[in-house]
Amino acid sequence: MAMALLRDLESLRAWRETVGGDDLGLIPTMGALHEGHLNLVRPARRTHQQVIVSIFVNPRQFGPHEDYDRYPRPEAQDLALLEKEGVDAVFLPSVAAMYPPDYQTSVVVGAIANQLCGHFRPGHFDAVATVVLKLFTLTQPTAAYFGEKDYQQLHVVRQMVQDFNLPLRVVGVPTVREDDGLAQSSRNLYLTPAQRQQAAAIPQTLQSVAAQLQAGIPPAIACQQGVDRLLAAGYASVDYLELRDANSLAAVAPTEKLASGQYRLLTAARLGAPPQQTRLIDNLPLSL
Amino acid sequence: MAMALLRDLESLRAWRETVGGDDLGLIPTMGALHEGHLNLVRPARRTHQQVIVSIFVNPRQFGPHEDYDRYPRPEAQDLALLEKEGVDAVFLPSVAAMYPPDYQTSVVVGAIANQLCGHFRPGHFDAVATVVLKLFTLTQPTAAYFGEKDYQQLHVVRQMVQDFNLPLRVVGVPTVREDDGLAQSSRNLYLTPAQRQQAAAIPQTLQSVAAQLQAGIPPAIACQQGVDRLLAAGYASVDYLELRDANSLAAVAPTEKLASGQYRLLTAARLGAPPQQTRLIDNLPLSL
Repeated sequence: MAMALLRDLESLRAWRETVGGDDLGLIPTMGALHEGHLNLVRPARRTHQQVIVSIFVNPRQFGPHEDYDRYPRPEAQDLALLEKEGVDAVFLPSVAAMYPPDYQTSVVVGAIANQLCGHFRPGHFDAVATVVLKLFTLTQPTAAYFGEKDYQQLHVVRQMVQDFNLPLRVVGVPTVREDDGLAQSSRNLYLTPAQRQQAAAIPQTLQSVAAQLQAGIPPAIACQQGVDRLLAAGYASVDYLELRDANSLAAVAPTEKLASGQYRLLTAARLGAPPQQTRLIDNLPLSL
Repeated sequence: MAMALLRDLESLRAWRETVGGDDLGLIPTMGALHEGHLNLVRPARRTHQQVIVSIFVNPRQFGPHEDYDRYPRPEAQDLALLEKEGVDAVFLPSVAAMYPPDYQTSVVVGAIANQLCGHFRPGHFDAVATVVLKLFTLTQPTAAYFGEKDYQQLHVVRQMVQDFNLPLRVVGVPTVREDDGLAQSSRNLYLTPAQRQQAAAIPQTLQSVAAQLQAGIPPAIACQQGVDRLLAAGYASVDYLELRDANSLAAVAPTEKLASGQYRLLTAARLGAPPQQTRLIDNLPLSL
């Protein structure tokens, strides 16, 4: 069967009817696909009878000075990659189809969405949750796959699914990295060759902070050293570099010895100067 | 088959499994059932293979000085009424099951929810939309039935269903009235015998304002006369009495001749003094 290209809600609904009760895996994306995305497609392909990938650059999750207009949209290349992976259908709705003129309803997520990246991108995760809910209700998947690279996003989606009792599983998939450790991201395409070299300071720094935390250095000290290291490596600014509870994303006591448990070390930092500044995020698990 | 009593999410899920692909009608209620509710159950019973009624007094849709605590909860009587109507299942979740301790996600509806009753009850319709979304995702109905008595609520739910692409039909059912025209409402139970007599001024006033509008009196004048009439009949205050577009609930030009179209005349008014004040709402269609 050829891969179905579904460019409006009606063709999606028709395709969904033909699939009927089949077990369906959804991978929501904004396109500009790389190995990290294909790494979400592959376990879905192994698990489900049908796999659908959505490609939608959601304008509502970009802030007024963010990169909505310059976000890469290499559609033909994306479709060729997905066809090679044996995806059954690709959903590529227009903005007008997703948000008709009288559109006015949003999902608002609480504390888990208002910290870390949410603090620096007000409304971002509510807009993500809203579009993800719409993709869920439109495609009605058995499971949906999200990368751990966007760790807070994964947990915002998990929270919404739990709070709204949505009948699907959320699967988190580990981050795919380049040879130097940089997490794969569509935004890496923005980097100049010099910035691309500097970028790898993020995974190196996270590894080193994690090692310090393992050795018993208090979180406030280890994280501040990490921030200093990123700035020294050429990052223009660091939005945050913090240790959090791996599930609730709750803050940890900054100066106390860590209790044993599952933690996550998360950072967001910027390369270059506005308006061509690129914001990169990454995170690492830490088990104590 | 005996009517299934589903008191937690697990028993609802198990029942939903047994029903499987059957066509399911949902009637969401807060209990204290009257003829108006049974009038929602009956068309659902005629239409669907399975009918489920939810009874949940949703604390989040009551304001801090509203009647959550004194809201009537005659459960045994409600269940007897539903059994007689041949309902297949009743879902009666606890507050803790619907809102566990880490609950933090809401639906926020825009303009349609922030006017009329929404203006006087801030956050009310967002809380209604949130609990209705949860009831939809938990029960997965083919169709859900709402009374036109709560006209704005019906349209807020329609808006959410459209905006979130929810896979179900929303059915609005005309209001059931007492012999003197008063719309049936669980809150009528709050009225003293004297207030019960005064209450009928609402439907009488709406009829008279509608007749004036039919006769070409401008909306601002006809509606002001209606407010005066309610106050003269013993209402302590009138939150609003307005003519709106029947679908969008958009305001109409107050002093111009009305174009032909579908309108709705809506009011909310209060009997008695706080804290025992009772707020009644009603509405009438107007076709020009």
